[in-house]
Amino acid sequence: MRRNRQVVLTSRPAGIPTAENFAITDAVVAVPGPGQVLVRNEFLSVDPAMRGWVSAVANYSAPVGVGEVMRSNAAGTVVASGVAAYPVGARVTGMFGWQEYALVEAGQVSRRVVEDDLPLSLSLGLLGLNGATAWLALSEIGRPAARETVVVSTAAGSVGSAVGQLARMAGARTVGISGGAAKTDLCTQVFGYDAAVDYRSPSFAADLAAACPDGVDVYFDNTSGAISDAVLTHLNRRARIVVCGTASVSSWDPWPSGPRVDRHLLTKAARMEGFLFFDHEHRLEEAVAHLAPLVRSGELRYLEDVLDGLERAPDAIAGLYRGDNLGKRVIRLSLEPA
Amino acid sequence: MRRNRQVVLTSRPAGIPTAENFAITDAVVAVPGPGQVLVRNEFLSVDPAMRGWVSAVANYSAPVGVGEVMRSNAAGTVVASGVAAYPVGARVTGMFGWQEYALVEAGQVSRRVVEDDLPLSLSLGLLGLNGATAWLALSEIGRPAARETVVVSTAAGSVGSAVGQLARMAGARTVGISGGAAKTDLCTQVFGYDAAVDYRSPSFAADLAAACPDGVDVYFDNTSGAISDAVLTHLNRRARIVVCGTASVSSWDPWPSGPRVDRHLLTKAARMEGFLFFDHEHRLEEAVAHLAPLVRSGELRYLEDVLDGLERAPDAIAGLYRGDNLGKRVIRLSLEPA
Repeated sequence: MRRNRQVVLTSRPAGIPTAENFAITDAVVAVPGPGQVLVRNEFLSVDPAMRGWVSAVANYSAPVGVGEVMRSNAAGTVVASGVAAYPVGARVTGMFGWQEYALVEAGQVSRRVVEDDLPLSLSLGLLGLNGATAWLALSEIGRPAARETVVVSTAAGSVGSAVGQLARMAGARTVGISGGAAKTDLCTQVFGYDAAVDYRSPSFAADLAAACPDGVDVYFDNTSGAISDAVLTHLNRRARIVVCGTASVSSWDPWPSGPRVDRHLLTKAARMEGFLFFDHEHRLEEAVAHLAPLVRSGELRYLEDVLDGLERAPDAIAGLYRGDNLGKRVIRLSLEPA
Repeated sequence: MRRNRQVVLTSRPAGIPTAENFAITDAVVAVPGPGQVLVRNEFLSVDPAMRGWVSAVANYSAPVGVGEVMRSNAAGTVVASGVAAYPVGARVTGMFGWQEYALVEAGQVSRRVVEDDLPLSLSLGLLGLNGATAWLALSEIGRPAARETVVVSTAAGSVGSAVGQLARMAGARTVGISGGAAKTDLCTQVFGYDAAVDYRSPSFAADLAAACPDGVDVYFDNTSGAISDAVLTHLNRRARIVVCGTASVSSWDPWPSGPRVDRHLLTKAARMEGFLFFDHEHRLEEAVAHLAPLVRSGELRYLEDVLDGLERAPDAIAGLYRGDNLGKRVIRLSLEPA
């Protein structure tokens, strides 16, 4: 009988989950019944939002229970199937969890990956949640016009780098905010930002002002906190702020304060709106159809940070928050074919 | 030669302008040239926003200069005209200032008031900026649906009371927030709110929660500050927050802090947007066409607080901030017909 190694949540972290909150355990691989598929995972996703999934604080999804397999996006190949739409050999992606094999209902499969010429791992990043988030949030809320200024925080990250490149394709001037020279260099040299600003620099506020001489029309915010406070002082009339993440805020308990934003929104008749991918999941195919050709043509670039082996998973979220990674972080599993 | 008494700004207030910041002076009434009209003002408007107009802090309009006639909306009758569209006898409204006679360019007339069966003063309130703001901001940003919960701050005020009534006509459940029993009674007894909450009560937070058992879908915010902080903890998914005023914040220098809103917007995929009437001025006729029949039928109720005589003007803004008024405040001038 095949064994299925799993990363299980063993204790609930106070803040960011670390290796100590997880253990690797063994389970048995089950056989799919009708309406189920067995997926052999090849890539497991590591995302900042996973921190929220293990938090006891109410959030936009129910917390992962202690003793349960860690929830995550994953991509792999169907190795046994009770679903005609997902035959053996099909490449699929979905919330399969941090484990080698996932027995799931057909409805848990997000999509069948048909871009056989492109790396499967992209279905966890640029051709998955990250790229779709970038494209949908930018086109639905941000709506950059030619010659407008678009500012992006975590600009070299997997969502941010796609936002910056898509905004540039729309004719906007793009300004990336990132931490440290390696990432600001990536912004301008790989992802085509017109300017990049290091938020760790003591001259951040002045650098940001200098990078936005015509003000800010769209702010794609992945950080919240002091970075956003600085950007919001530069809004133009009818500016749009996409709230996509709050990575710079270490805790929401107690709830942090900051400069009130409503007066900025009022005097500029500006809009600030939250984006949750799960409200737009039904548009994933449309997003991939838009993005895949741009990846093939080389217009849309990406970076991946690949960790080899399931045993790298437990520390991988903490590593994101330490800034260890450049690019979308995934765990690669190398299992024997079935 | 006719004399024209004017209320002139004599000093710039630190915060809320009081009688001491103004003087009443005499000028001569000029004769309109081609393209100009001379208006005899009958009603002068008194609005919370006028506080911003005399502030030196950059705002959405240039400050009134010391020595200049106080900027204000007003309504009156054309007494001499060089413009065919505005003949002698026409009732008009526009930014005519706190003065008895205004010599203005045709472009300064906001509209010719053709609702001869309705009080002219309404063109400064429910059939003017206040009512148009309520209708446009609610229909463009708030978009209440039947059975949704709409919360309104300064709920008995000239904008708020219209918002509450219009939201109720759209089938929403309406909750008004106001200060003191006289105003909360107005909310439920005159303006038809389903519930009213007194923000001055020590049990405000609990009262608000009890009044919104199904959460908040639309928040029409005229106050900012602690009132808004309380409402934002009750947002439903895809809630809309209309930022229309910040009346509860006494100063934006230094800029005040409050609980960060972006996490609420993100986890609820909610939207917060500022509304400035001046961006929508071209829709004033459309708004009046929608609202006037509702006034005639009695479906849309209003209150006015009429002060008699130009000499009541200098203290009138401070009075608004003291909460002296119930309903839209106007100054009535009783001049001899030309």
